[in-house]
Amino acid sequence: MTDHIYWKEGSLYVLDQRALPFKKVYIQCRTLADVIKAIKNMTIRGAPLIGIVAAYGVVLGAGEALQSKGRCTEADMGRICARLKATRPTAVNLAWALDRMKDVYKRCIHDADRLDMLTDEAIAIHVEDIQNNRMLSLYGAELIADGDTILTHCNAGALATGGYGTALGVLRAAHEAGKRIKVIATETRPYLQGARLTVWELWQDGIDVELVPDNHAGLLCRKGIVNKVIVGADRIALNGDTANKIGTYMIALCAHQSQIPFFVAAPVSSFDRHIENGSYIEIEERDGKEVKYVQGKILTVKDVKARYYSFDVTPARYISNFITEKGIIERPFRKYIRMLCS
Amino acid sequence: MTDHIYWKEGSLYVLDQRALPFKKVYIQCRTLADVIKAIKNMTIRGAPLIGIVAAYGVVLGAGEALQSKGRCTEADMGRICARLKATRPTAVNLAWALDRMKDVYKRCIHDADRLDMLTDEAIAIHVEDIQNNRMLSLYGAELIADGDTILTHCNAGALATGGYGTALGVLRAAHEAGKRIKVIATETRPYLQGARLTVWELWQDGIDVELVPDNHAGLLCRKGIVNKVIVGADRIALNGDTANKIGTYMIALCAHQSQIPFFVAAPVSSFDRHIENGSYIEIEERDGKEVKYVQGKILTVKDVKARYYSFDVTPARYISNFITEKGIIERPFRKYIRMLCS
Repeated sequence: MTDHIYWKEGSLYVLDQRALPFKKVYIQCRTLADVIKAIKNMTIRGAPLIGIVAAYGVVLGAGEALQSKGRCTEADMGRICARLKATRPTAVNLAWALDRMKDVYKRCIHDADRLDMLTDEAIAIHVEDIQNNRMLSLYGAELIADGDTILTHCNAGALATGGYGTALGVLRAAHEAGKRIKVIATETRPYLQGARLTVWELWQDGIDVELVPDNHAGLLCRKGIVNKVIVGADRIALNGDTANKIGTYMIALCAHQSQIPFFVAAPVSSFDRHIENGSYIEIEERDGKEVKYVQGKILTVKDVKARYYSFDVTPARYISNFITEKGIIERPFRKYIRMLCS
Repeated sequence: MTDHIYWKEGSLYVLDQRALPFKKVYIQCRTLADVIKAIKNMTIRGAPLIGIVAAYGVVLGAGEALQSKGRCTEADMGRICARLKATRPTAVNLAWALDRMKDVYKRCIHDADRLDMLTDEAIAIHVEDIQNNRMLSLYGAELIADGDTILTHCNAGALATGGYGTALGVLRAAHEAGKRIKVIATETRPYLQGARLTVWELWQDGIDVELVPDNHAGLLCRKGIVNKVIVGADRIALNGDTANKIGTYMIALCAHQSQIPFFVAAPVSSFDRHIENGSYIEIEERDGKEVKYVQGKILTVKDVKARYYSFDVTPARYISNFITEKGIIERPFRKYIRMLCS
């Protein structure tokens, strides 16, 4: 599951997640514009993966500047990063990765080394993400018990990251440790990341997985059909408020109401040290058309308006723990998240 | 919107709701078996409509008995009603309508009158349902203010009833009274009753309607994008616990958390005087295949298991009021529901 993104001979290759699990199509990104398009049109998605792909996008953008005029100035870097940052507003990993790329640019003394150093940094961001996921998954697996039935929403798997996954990484690690677990995946409308990606990943790993519509989470919690919930994150504020795929808040509220633990698994790069709480998180609104069609088939009256907010914010009070590569975060969240981010 | 079910020359004609809004196809039910099939395979759906269709099913069943052996005995009636009652377990209107038909059977003294009396009773159940909906809608419209944005789930419209609708009836009556309202309809996976039926009904009536995925309700409540919620019901217990389309509980919980009024609009026939609370309501589980395919297109890994519980139970504490043809029910629910059912 780590072949969904790779760098080869100056191009970035990404597996088109819109076609999964039905077709495996790779998109070659030769230019910065190709990368911007792949992020915007959801060829790739998932907060950590967006950060990684953007880092490779910086490499391509810098390469274009070097090729066209022999150098990549700080102003060029600023423009490249600004264009990438504007692709999607909610996931903080994007800004985090771009900041790392800008830092490397500044640290580089010789113009001739710039492209190599930027390439090395993008690869480092990619590789470290996989390592971090494996580490946080080992921590998280301690929270999963033999016999658990765990609900997950959207896809916080290998496909959403550099590899292995965050929420699904935790489930993988528990499975690999011999714990018998069952996973229930919400389909995650409208993009169906749960139905298409999460089910596919877990199925391939031989993990027992069942699919439900998003509106089933309340009943599953109330009836005790699930006894734990685990999700990923797109941005976590200092107080623990967490932006994640639309619908996460509803699931967290239901889990809280039924006294079911609700875990957020995310690398430190998903924490935003600049915001005190979730009210500062911009929620992306995408084209309502994405709600009205599934696989090219229209689902409703042709001309009706539809809305699609990609994310919502779950208040920290509904979250039991954060699972990071530095360990499990307990309450008080603000204190420990500050320590984590410092 | 009242041409979706009619009785003509000894046959029941129903509009196939599975094909809406794309095609208007009528199914002719000539036999009891035809009616049973139409209920089971969701050609028709909606608690009040299921009751009405079942009443006509009794007429067809009694007609078949008369034709084959010259009479319809009480044992025949018992078998006919038992077969109809077994079609779908959750909506109480089905049992309520069958009880009315059995009562008429018993009240009939002359064998020769039986079929006419049963036919008249089925038509009465149908017509009264429309009248009740118009009456409850007038009461309910008082709870809707000019400028409201109202969230609704599934389809509690004309199509779910004999005509006019319950939750959508209230919205129609408010609109007809000149109140400027906006409706946000959840798509209601997996059958997409919201996307296909509710949007279509409101669109035809010129009511401002927008579509969202089911997982948007929490964000819409938290951000104050909607300021009221209204739904129908499949069965209401004496304490006010309410079975309705899967996902209703999650929406009610979110509305409650954001202090947004949550209304249940339903005729008295949806109240079950025999059960004290929602724990006695059987929740139908349908074939998981219905989750895995949309319009014949598969959405996920072919062999994965999927679950589909058709309904959930919303605890009475999250419900602000019930809207019935006898008036608005306030707390304490148990006291007023007992009065209503007596």
